[in-house]
Amino acid sequence: MIDRQSIAEAAARIQTYVRHTPVLCVTGSDLGLGDGADLPVALKLELTQHTGSFKPRGAFNRMLSEPAPSAGVITASGGNHGAAVAYAARALGFNAEIFVPETTPQAKVSRIAGYGARVIRTGTAYAEALAACQARQQETGAMEVHAYDHADVLAGQGTAGREFETDVPDLTHILVATGGGGLIGGVAAWYAGSARVVSVEPEGCPALHDALRAGQPVPAPVGGYAADSLGARQVGAEMFPLAQRYVDEAVLVSDAAIRQAQALLWDRFRIVTEPGGATATAALISGRFRPPAGARVGILVCGGNTDLGKFPAGG
Amino acid sequence: MIDRQSIAEAAARIQTYVRHTPVLCVTGSDLGLGDGADLPVALKLELTQHTGSFKPRGAFNRMLSEPAPSAGVITASGGNHGAAVAYAARALGFNAEIFVPETTPQAKVSRIAGYGARVIRTGTAYAEALAACQARQQETGAMEVHAYDHADVLAGQGTAGREFETDVPDLTHILVATGGGGLIGGVAAWYAGSARVVSVEPEGCPALHDALRAGQPVPAPVGGYAADSLGARQVGAEMFPLAQRYVDEAVLVSDAAIRQAQALLWDRFRIVTEPGGATATAALISGRFRPPAGARVGILVCGGNTDLGKFPAGG
Repeated sequence: MIDRQSIAEAAARIQTYVRHTPVLCVTGSDLGLGDGADLPVALKLELTQHTGSFKPRGAFNRMLSEPAPSAGVITASGGNHGAAVAYAARALGFNAEIFVPETTPQAKVSRIAGYGARVIRTGTAYAEALAACQARQQETGAMEVHAYDHADVLAGQGTAGREFETDVPDLTHILVATGGGGLIGGVAAWYAGSARVVSVEPEGCPALHDALRAGQPVPAPVGGYAADSLGARQVGAEMFPLAQRYVDEAVLVSDAAIRQAQALLWDRFRIVTEPGGATATAALISGRFRPPAGARVGILVCGGNTDLGKFPAGG
Repeated sequence: MIDRQSIAEAAARIQTYVRHTPVLCVTGSDLGLGDGADLPVALKLELTQHTGSFKPRGAFNRMLSEPAPSAGVITASGGNHGAAVAYAARALGFNAEIFVPETTPQAKVSRIAGYGARVIRTGTAYAEALAACQARQQETGAMEVHAYDHADVLAGQGTAGREFETDVPDLTHILVATGGGGLIGGVAAWYAGSARVVSVEPEGCPALHDALRAGQPVPAPVGGYAADSLGARQVGAEMFPLAQRYVDEAVLVSDAAIRQAQALLWDRFRIVTEPGGATATAALISGRFRPPAGARVGILVCGGNTDLGKFPAGG
C-alpha cells in the first residue's frame, strides 16, 4: 500500500517532467454559496498540467519506477490517460502503443498520435480495445501502464495532493472527482487522515460510492455527462483499502450540477473544464457537500480537455 | 508620479477586494521555442481575476482613494474596464453608470448590467459614449473612473507587478500588453528598473511604440484583432514618463502571432485568453522579443473575456 514516503519518492522522480500546478484562492461567495460566503476555497488548477489533466503524474512515475523494456509502453485509453502515456513516452524516449476504441473522436486520436505514439483503433468499446492491448502486450513484452490500478500510478497521482498541501497547508477538506480511483487514492494516501478527503462522482458513475457501501470494489453503472473521464466500471483494487481508510465521504452529483459547475468556473474564474474536471466543484455548489463551520476547502480541478465549441457557457 | 510606495499602499487598500492571482511556471520548450527550450517562463494568470481581467485593481484603488460622492461612479467603456467599474461599485455599494457605444455586444452589456450598474448605450463609437459620459458627470458630480490615465488607477494596476515579484522574485524580463498603458505603467513603476519591462502591442495599435519614438503621447492607429481591449488612440499622460524611464523595449506583434499565441496557450496549458490577453505571449513565441541567455521571463496573461464559440482553437 502506498504512503507518504512512496509519494514523496514519486515526487522526486517525476519533478523535472511534470508541472507544479498553481492554486487559485477564492471564496464561497465567488462560488455563489448562499451560506458560507466567507468560506476559503483553494482551486488547484491541475488542468494546466501537461496534456490537460493530472494523468502524466502517474504515467511518469510508473515508467520511471522500473527499467522499461525495449518494446516500450502500452496502454488502452482514448482519453486523458492515453494522451498522458503518449506524452510521457515521448519525453522519456520510449516507444508507445495506445489502443483506442473506434468511437474515440479523431481529435483525440490526432493528439495522441501527435505525441509520437502508435495509435491502434480497434473494437467498438473500451473493453475490446483493452483486450487487443493485452494480447499485443503478451507478444511484445511492453510495459503496460494501467490507468489507475497500480501502486506506482497511485503514488504518482498522490503528488498532486503533496503539492496542494505544500502550497495551502491548512486545508480541512479536499474534494476530488473519482473515476477508477487513481487520483483520489493517491491524494487520500498523502493526507492519510490529516485532512478530510471527499470523493465526488456523477450519479451515473458511482463506482466508489457503491464499492464503499458493498465493502469491496463492485461493478457499477457507467453513464451520463462525465463518463468519458470518470466512467470506470469498478474502482481499482489498489486504491480501495486507501479509500476505506482515508476517504471521509463519497458524494454523488447530478449531470446538471456538473454543467452548472463548468459554467460557473468559466463565468467567475475563466477556467475551462471538462465535465470530470468540474465534478468536484459541483459537490460544493450543489450543496451535496456541505462544509462545516471553520472549514477550508481544497478542490482539485483535474482536467480541461473539452471541445470549446461544445462548452456549456457560450460567452 | 507613482512609485513602489504608492503601489504598496494600493495593495493594502484593495487586498480584500481583488484576488492574488496564481502563477504557472513553464519552459521555453512548452511554448515551442526552438532556441531557449530551457528558458524559465512564469505566466501570471491575471485572467482569473474578478471580471476576467486585471482591471478591478485600478478601479478599486481609484474608488477607495478618495471619498465617493453620493452620485457614485461613472465611466465610459463597453469592455473590461466597464465590467470592472461595475463590479467594484457593487462591492463597495456605490451607484454606477457605464456608458457604452451602441456597437457593444449584448453579452457585454448584460454582464455589466448583471453587476447592478446602469448601462447607457449611446453613440456609434467610443468617443461619443465618452462625450455623453462626461456631460452626465458634469450634471451628477459622480466620480469619473478613467480606464487608465489616472495615478490611482496606475497604482492599482501596479499591484499586479508587486504580486508577481513576490511570487517569482528573480524574473529578469516582464512582458506586458499595452493599450492605454495603465497596466504597463503600473508594472514599470513597481519594478522601476529592477527587471526589464517589455511592452507588447499589436501592429494595428502601436500607441506606446509610437509615443516612445515621438518623445510624447501621440495619436496612433487603432485596428486589428486585439483592438477591443488594446485599442487606445493614445497612451495616458500619467504613464508616459514611467514608460520613458522604465520600459526597456516596445515591440509590435502581428494579429496572426496573437491568434497563434491564443491557440498555443489553450493547447499547452488549457488557458483561454482574449486577444489582448495573449498579446504579450505572442512576442515571445513569434521571436519579436528574444530573451538573452540567462533570462527568466514573466508574462502577464491579462484577460480572458472571449466568446468561446469564436475562439481560434476549436478542440
